[in-house]
Amino acid sequence: MSLMNGKTRRSLGECLEAVHAKTPLIHNITNYVTVNDVANALLACGGSPIMSDEPKDVYEITSICGGLNINIGTLNERSIEAMMIAGARAKELGHVVLLDPVGAGASTLRTTTAQTIVNKIHPDVIRGNISEIKTLAKGSGTTKGVDADAADTVTEDNLDDMVNFVKAFAAKTGSVIAITGAIDLVADENVCYVIRNGRKEMSRITGTGCQLSTVCAAYAVANPDNKVDAVAAAVCLMGLAGEIGWSRMQDGDGNSTYRNRIIDAIFNMDSKTLEAGAKYEIR
Amino acid sequence: MSLMNGKTRRSLGECLEAVHAKTPLIHNITNYVTVNDVANALLACGGSPIMSDEPKDVYEITSICGGLNINIGTLNERSIEAMMIAGARAKELGHVVLLDPVGAGASTLRTTTAQTIVNKIHPDVIRGNISEIKTLAKGSGTTKGVDADAADTVTEDNLDDMVNFVKAFAAKTGSVIAITGAIDLVADENVCYVIRNGRKEMSRITGTGCQLSTVCAAYAVANPDNKVDAVAAAVCLMGLAGEIGWSRMQDGDGNSTYRNRIIDAIFNMDSKTLEAGAKYEIR
Amino acid sequence: MSLMNGKTRRSLGECLEAVHAKTPLIHNITNYVTVNDVANALLACGGSPIMSDEPKDVYEITSICGGLNINIGTLNERSIEAMMIAGARAKELGHVVLLDPVGAGASTLRTTTAQTIVNKIHPDVIRGNISEIKTLAKGSGTTKGVDADAADTVTEDNLDDMVNFVKAFAAKTGSVIAITGAIDLVADENVCYVIRNGRKEMSRITGTGCQLSTVCAAYAVANPDNKVDAVAAAVCLMGLAGEIGWSRMQDGDGNSTYRNRIIDAIFNMDSKTLEAGAKYEIR
Repeated sequence: MSLMNGKTRRSLGECLEAVHAKTPLIHNITNYVTVNDVANALLACGGSPIMSDEPKDVYEITSICGGLNINIGTLNERSIEAMMIAGARAKELGHVVLLDPVGAGASTLRTTTAQTIVNKIHPDVIRGNISEIKTLAKGSGTTKGVDADAADTVTEDNLDDMVNFVKAFAAKTGSVIAITGAIDLVADENVCYVIRNGRKEMSRITGTGCQLSTVCAAYAVANPDNKVDAVAAAVCLMGLAGEIGWSRMQDGDGNSTYRNRIIDAIFNMDSKTLEAGAKYEIR
Repeated sequence: MSLMNGKTRRSLGECLEAVHAKTPLIHNITNYVTVNDVANALLACGGSPIMSDEPKDVYEITSICGGLNINIGTLNERSIEAMMIAGARAKELGHVVLLDPVGAGASTLRTTTAQTIVNKIHPDVIRGNISEIKTLAKGSGTTKGVDADAADTVTEDNLDDMVNFVKAFAAKTGSVIAITGAIDLVADENVCYVIRNGRKEMSRITGTGCQLSTVCAAYAVANPDNKVDAVAAAVCLMGLAGEIGWSRMQDGDGNSTYRNRIIDAIFNMDSKTLEAGAKYEIR
Repeated sequence: MSLMNGKTRRSLGECLEAVHAKTPLIHNITNYVTVNDVANALLACGGSPIMSDEPKDVYEITSICGGLNINIGTLNERSIEAMMIAGARAKELGHVVLLDPVGAGASTLRTTTAQTIVNKIHPDVIRGNISEIKTLAKGSGTTKGVDADAADTVTEDNLDDMVNFVKAFAAKTGSVIAITGAIDLVADENVCYVIRNGRKEMSRITGTGCQLSTVCAAYAVANPDNKVDAVAAAVCLMGLAGEIGWSRMQDGDGNSTYRNRIIDAIFNMDSKTLEAGAKYEIR
């Protein structure tokens, strides 16, 4: 542990150990495209999954969990109602709530739903790509200036601006914000992890982002006093698993086998490997 | 074949051969988390899958099948209606109906739905973990005594009590009851198979229970006069596939690859391998 | 390129190169059984997936895509409404629309829905098995004669009749028609590709047909002036991937591993391999 901004930081390895020790139970209201990989990735990282998206079921189901992962990838009217009920209940109980605003910006329903969840549920963590997060920031009306200056991807050239943007959005929402892409940013209002793990081939698999979201939720649940460190650890874990998985690819393998090898690498990750392989700086 | 309690027993291998010979077509109303693995496991064992959960579609779909597998893992109001319509129709036609009461006990909706299916549809087979089956038994009001004496897991120490409990619940419901866990129990009112196949690592994969349920349905459909033997054969098959799959794991493999290797082992199973690898006693 | 019936034909390899160059974005309204494999197969072939089946979401989502893949495998009242909205919007924008009429003929709801989509949306491509396509052709009332003479599978013996049938149905609907099975037929009103790639073991995996449909959509989007050639290229690609995937199977592998190897083979396919491995004649 080290001191930063007056707060004790928890190391990536300590965050992983906490997940392994606590087996966080996560309620997932998620899309049906990647849900099986989400469940297996959560099991791989040391958590445990429950899925339910029926409004009449979610109040009780989320009550017995430690955290809630809301992913709007294949939202519908019924599941949106379930998201609001479960989100309110989870916050009432002090559970960690994570929002993955899949496709925010691509349709009015997605943008409005994501913004409503941000405004009414106040998720502890929001994880998306840069377009989704910028859509949410724009919608709030006050971060337009920052956003107008920021380019559409996080690059070495615009990194200072993007770090300021993500910290400002974290300050505004009170959430830990994770923007994932070629360079990943994980920030609260004070610190921003800049993470350079992962491989570009991960974008040829469906659902690595969805998997990461539930893993982030598990990490935040197991490390409640260090959520920004925990989410950063989860993001490093996923990127490093992508690197390890790729290193095991054989001639003739493609994206389907790569999917398996990434989840396998999450399954086999220990704190020593994570600490040795994580590539990040803190700003 | 051998005689037991005045009834001819069908061997595990004979049960498997019947599935391979008949290719049972199973209508699955199941959760969207594990549905793809359910379909592939059913194909692997020699059956054939159809999925439908729309109330206006299920009456006709279940009519052309040989059996119905109802799994409440991600139930919703629409699919519950479909379960009742399909269940009633399947019974009317004399089809095998199996209930997998996923999460019974975890929410009122799940408990109530599972109990309603037990009471109104009278499934031929009920397969769940010990908590789910105990929830159903408690709800019925008359097996509390047995249940109160039974611990929360099936162990060598409480095995006699659990065997009595499962036989009593089978007698009460008229269903074949399968309780799966470290030790599996498959019983009707007269006999109880105590099965010790499988590996603990199977719990790190989502959906091995869901896969087993549809395989049990296929086995019961193909062996209509020997349902308890058939379900026991399916439970041994799944556990043995877990053992064979694990034996093929290589350095760096994890739960995602293990998932594939288990289904592969189901695909390659023959009656000789099943008979040689099954570990069970009959009480 | 070569001239056929006065029209310039585009080679299979050219069709593949166009997909790789354009990364077609496909909106999929598809079943929840095989949706993950559909997304990964589409990514493997060089396309990009979006899934949405909420009536309030699909108008905008399909507007930002290049094509729409409608699969009725687990249709429900909500998703049927979404199919009609998205289909109408996609046609309005001149997007490619593909219909996969899963289970047409097996229930009234499926048959009626598929026929309504054919009659009202006029899909650019219809891909199904022989039973599904014959159901659609019968329903139209005028191809009964052809259908009555055609057997239930495409064989070398009835090939002439089947080629005439599929060309006639293509002429009637104005759609490219793909009938897949042991022998595949891809036709418009003028030409019919007779394709002999693939392996019988592909039927032991769930969803190879669903995967093929989204790949056909991507190929048609990327080759808008040569849709029949493009769909034929996609069908050859899938069959050849099945052959290549099977050649990589090892002792103990089964249908789950085969699923991965087929998608991997799609991922690694290049135009030279496709041209060398495709087995087809044009009638």
